[in-house]
Amino acid sequence: MSQKEKTTIILFSADLDKAIAAFIIANGAAAYGHEVTVFFTFWGLNTLRKDQPVSVRKGFLENMFGKLMPRGANKLGLSKMNFAGIGPKLIKHVMKKHNALSLPQLIELAREQGVKLVACTMTMDLLGLKKEELIDGIDYAGVATYLGDAAEAKVNLFI
Amino acid sequence: MSQKEKTTIILFSADLDKAIAAFIIANGAAAYGHEVTVFFTFWGLNTLRKDQPVSVRKGFLENMFGKLMPRGANKLGLSKMNFAGIGPKLIKHVMKKHNALSLPQLIELAREQGVKLVACTMTMDLLGLKKEELIDGIDYAGVATYLGDAAEAKVNLFI
Amino acid sequence: MSQKEKTTIILFSADLDKAIAAFIIANGAAAYGHEVTVFFTFWGLNTLRKDQPVSVRKGFLENMFGKLMPRGANKLGLSKMNFAGIGPKLIKHVMKKHNALSLPQLIELAREQGVKLVACTMTMDLLGLKKEELIDGIDYAGVATYLGDAAEAKVNLFI
Repeated sequence: MSQKEKTTIILFSADLDKAIAAFIIANGAAAYGHEVTVFFTFWGLNTLRKDQPVSVRKGFLENMFGKLMPRGANKLGLSKMNFAGIGPKLIKHVMKKHNALSLPQLIELAREQGVKLVACTMTMDLLGLKKEELIDGIDYAGVATYLGDAAEAKVNLFI
Repeated sequence: MSQKEKTTIILFSADLDKAIAAFIIANGAAAYGHEVTVFFTFWGLNTLRKDQPVSVRKGFLENMFGKLMPRGANKLGLSKMNFAGIGPKLIKHVMKKHNALSLPQLIELAREQGVKLVACTMTMDLLGLKKEELIDGIDYAGVATYLGDAAEAKVNLFI
Repeated sequence: MSQKEKTTIILFSADLDKAIAAFIIANGAAAYGHEVTVFFTFWGLNTLRKDQPVSVRKGFLENMFGKLMPRGANKLGLSKMNFAGIGPKLIKHVMKKHNALSLPQLIELAREQGVKLVACTMTMDLLGLKKEELIDGIDYAGVATYLGDAAEAKVNLFI
């Protein structure tokens, strides 16, 4: 009864704008007292990648996926008006001008507020992403964990 | 107990097809007796723009964003098969043929049914959109308002 | 009280990756004991198309839509890194290598588990898709049915 409200967000997309929206909602909900979990699946996993290449043994395809996908929160493109990478630069510039937190800062704030960041192990396997390549302090789980959380949450979004 | 069911929709996208889906769900929920709120954020804000340019003072970047983004519900493109603007014309033609309401008519119906249309002030700032540029009779709020509504709603969608 | 938890998913998109995500969540929720409904609307309807052309009488535009849209779960593209159809082949190859179920197998599993697959009749009309063109054993309904289900569900996603 006196339990905390819960909020879950699936971040499927690797678009900068969608990742920003996800983290603004996650941080808002955490500030509001919700227990918040963000599940990173498919392309969304790229948000959690370290920005430097990490030496891990991979097959040919996994290696190629790793090279083609954006390496970390700073490398994401926009879902609209990407203009070969100029769009994200403009958005970052405008956000700085307005003293809005950048995506890496939003992620940092989320961690400080206790938002649980969970990487989907099934899609990590598919895309050939290894734990060593993702940022520290995150959790690893599958769809069962997501459903357990979502079934207890009021707000569940797929972004 | 005798409270109305609540439904919230975040419209993040500026795609005609997604905006139509959002308003069909919003209008359906309102007809069903739900209290419905649609939050317009990022590109979704373009759905609320007046179709004529409005003279407001803006910086260079904000001016450019304003010119590059679609001006109002009639100018949105499709998420698939846009074909440089032919897709939206075909969809509008087919909708008319089937006597389906157009997006501007769906928005009008939503307002008549008391659906709350809320523009996200934070992303208005980022994209340089001013209140004078958006249609009349809408509300302005931030993520806290959204979360307050969503935490009381059964159906919460991110479109 | 002893009622089953409910989960609804709107599949709006015709992207292979998003359809896979939708069916992994749907199958997970069904295995978890939820009553699950997947509503297919707009481009998402293509997931339900038979892979062979079906002879039905159609207008010119409806015929063209039918030819331009992907014919069934095996023909969907990726939301990212589609590379003119090479991306989907790679993903399918990688999924097979990892013994992950393919999309047609995920759909089959969903049916075996009693997941309700519902085609949105309104968008079928718009896109000119006929019942004969869709796979057998699915339901047909509109937004009112969706809202009835969603209002009783804990987890409602728009994909």
